[in-house]
Amino acid sequence: MTSHTFVGWQLSETLIDHEQLRDFVIALMKKLGAPEDTSICVADNLVTSNLRGIDSHGVGRLKRYVTGIREGYIVPDAKVDTVIENAVLANVNGNHALGQAVGVYSMSLAIHKALSEGIGVVTAFNSNHYGFAGYYAMMALDQGFIGISMTNSEPLVVPTFGRNAKLGTNPIAMAVPASENNSWVMDQATSVVPSGKLQVYERAGEEIPEGWATDETGHSTTDPTRVLQNLYGGTGEGGILPLGGEGEIHGGHKGYGFATMVDILCGVLSGANYADDVVWSIDNGIKHPNVGHFFLAMDPSFFGDLENFKSRMDDMIERLHQSEKADGETRIFVHGEKEFEEHERREKTGIPLDARTIESLEQFAEEFNIDLEFKE
Amino acid sequence: MTSHTFVGWQLSETLIDHEQLRDFVIALMKKLGAPEDTSICVADNLVTSNLRGIDSHGVGRLKRYVTGIREGYIVPDAKVDTVIENAVLANVNGNHALGQAVGVYSMSLAIHKALSEGIGVVTAFNSNHYGFAGYYAMMALDQGFIGISMTNSEPLVVPTFGRNAKLGTNPIAMAVPASENNSWVMDQATSVVPSGKLQVYERAGEEIPEGWATDETGHSTTDPTRVLQNLYGGTGEGGILPLGGEGEIHGGHKGYGFATMVDILCGVLSGANYADDVVWSIDNGIKHPNVGHFFLAMDPSFFGDLENFKSRMDDMIERLHQSEKADGETRIFVHGEKEFEEHERREKTGIPLDARTIESLEQFAEEFNIDLEFKE
Repeated sequence: MTSHTFVGWQLSETLIDHEQLRDFVIALMKKLGAPEDTSICVADNLVTSNLRGIDSHGVGRLKRYVTGIREGYIVPDAKVDTVIENAVLANVNGNHALGQAVGVYSMSLAIHKALSEGIGVVTAFNSNHYGFAGYYAMMALDQGFIGISMTNSEPLVVPTFGRNAKLGTNPIAMAVPASENNSWVMDQATSVVPSGKLQVYERAGEEIPEGWATDETGHSTTDPTRVLQNLYGGTGEGGILPLGGEGEIHGGHKGYGFATMVDILCGVLSGANYADDVVWSIDNGIKHPNVGHFFLAMDPSFFGDLENFKSRMDDMIERLHQSEKADGETRIFVHGEKEFEEHERREKTGIPLDARTIESLEQFAEEFNIDLEFKE
Repeated sequence: MTSHTFVGWQLSETLIDHEQLRDFVIALMKKLGAPEDTSICVADNLVTSNLRGIDSHGVGRLKRYVTGIREGYIVPDAKVDTVIENAVLANVNGNHALGQAVGVYSMSLAIHKALSEGIGVVTAFNSNHYGFAGYYAMMALDQGFIGISMTNSEPLVVPTFGRNAKLGTNPIAMAVPASENNSWVMDQATSVVPSGKLQVYERAGEEIPEGWATDETGHSTTDPTRVLQNLYGGTGEGGILPLGGEGEIHGGHKGYGFATMVDILCGVLSGANYADDVVWSIDNGIKHPNVGHFFLAMDPSFFGDLENFKSRMDDMIERLHQSEKADGETRIFVHGEKEFEEHERREKTGIPLDARTIESLEQFAEEFNIDLEFKE
């Protein structure tokens, strides 16, 4: 239920083994000054995203991470600190580390608290792009816990009746264990689409559907190039529409509500930046992004027997699966199952990459003298 | 940003003073066997909903509550129990009490826990319709806390690619204190629209927009009568679409995700019913609804100074307010402000009611011998 359903995603025939790719990212991060544990966090997050078919959040992001480290606004060896905590809550200063290091630290802390108290809630500030949100929510599954993860992000989304991007695509992820079925894993931007989807349509020379994005007038457009030029070309006008689309007729104000909710929990509460100010903030004279995250881990066994809870999740999932299909449809999905199936497939066959990503990996391989081997 | 923006909502010219209406509901509930505190909970919730312009969740609901009490599946004097708890978590058995009694008890417990631990999370089962979700979230505001409230509800919503209603309109509400501005209060169904909105279009003889609801084929229809007859007339097919509409093109799978998330937290976790089984459950040989709720209270002062947090909320709200408007638009709203303005207006002028609600109140007044006085 995510980006791998994109029409026209330009994946090459070239495949790479996930273990190879993981080792490559670890080696690259270490060469750039990240310690071993941080390098593993980044590699596991990005490669898991590719394995699950969420290519928009996979190793294609490495180029931006490398730029951030080189320009000094991402600090690869920064130590993540807990600035305040009690038995169940904590606020974490990411100190401009790679977002994955901040995310894994913070979610681990939330899980640790949930182990003794039944619940743990951790916010983080001074962080960077942390990869795909579902990764942290899914960390809770190993303990049989429910995990929630959210992040704010660069302003790309226009509030209802507005003309300028004021909020991020601000995703919400939740992971819940089941017994017979795969875990239920929801991981979704609170906008109609992520920005990557506009790029896919642009490259394919196709119009985007009405209700995805606005031009500089604040109204819906079908021209992806116009939206992307406005967003990234400096006019600062227009942007992606919140889930529910333009105005209030189809509930666009609800998507705008969810995006704001995420920004309040991740940004306003944690001490990170928020709204159109997520990028940038000045710390000790240096400009850094000040991205914020929110993590929650909760132990369902507190409310009763864990196996009973998991069986109830199975029953919920089966009720949805077995429900009557709309004419012409053959399957009702539950959240996460497309990704689990893709994970299994790509683990065997290898991960397909787009041409731009392959080029950047080859460049890094040469520059940093790291082995890079494709499957064919 | 809620139901008072309905086109064609048939409000009469007849107004009633909110204090009068509150006293009337309290008297009615007491005559039906509810204790004083429960009667006040019900009255305050329903009348506050009317004051805020959310007429779909106001005193128009009384008729159903009275039926439930008379038929024995709502127990007006039931004692709400905490069945399990620790310092931060609790699970509450509503014992088939009026939903407002369960909601106020549970949210008070969450707030109490947040006072000492910084956070409190409470789930509830064996409950009934609890009125408007925002009411409980807003209870946290008196302490300067963030409040969250969710409930599952009768199946009206079709999962993506499905044909039958399997999930409720499952609302999510969040209230966050600000300083110079009204609190930020989001309260929204996870479906495109609530069912009341279809009824409004039906009464007005208007077509509904594409993407709101499906007919018995599982595909979008513009005929509200067909949807309502299917939903309430016994075919059990079709229903309201999740936020994002039909299929995945506009993110309908995301609304479906949010609806399922609410049902997991309110139903699967708490021990309430869930999915298409929210109504009914058998307890001691009697059929009752087994609705579930989820409540969270969190103290932002744990993360730093409360006044600083509230100022940051003001800044967030002002960034949204002052943002450039789309061509033809004059105002960007933040969540809750339409309702605060309506509350202020109706507190002065009185609450307008629709003809059907007036008729039911007059009937109760006569039957139970309770004073009922309209403003004109």
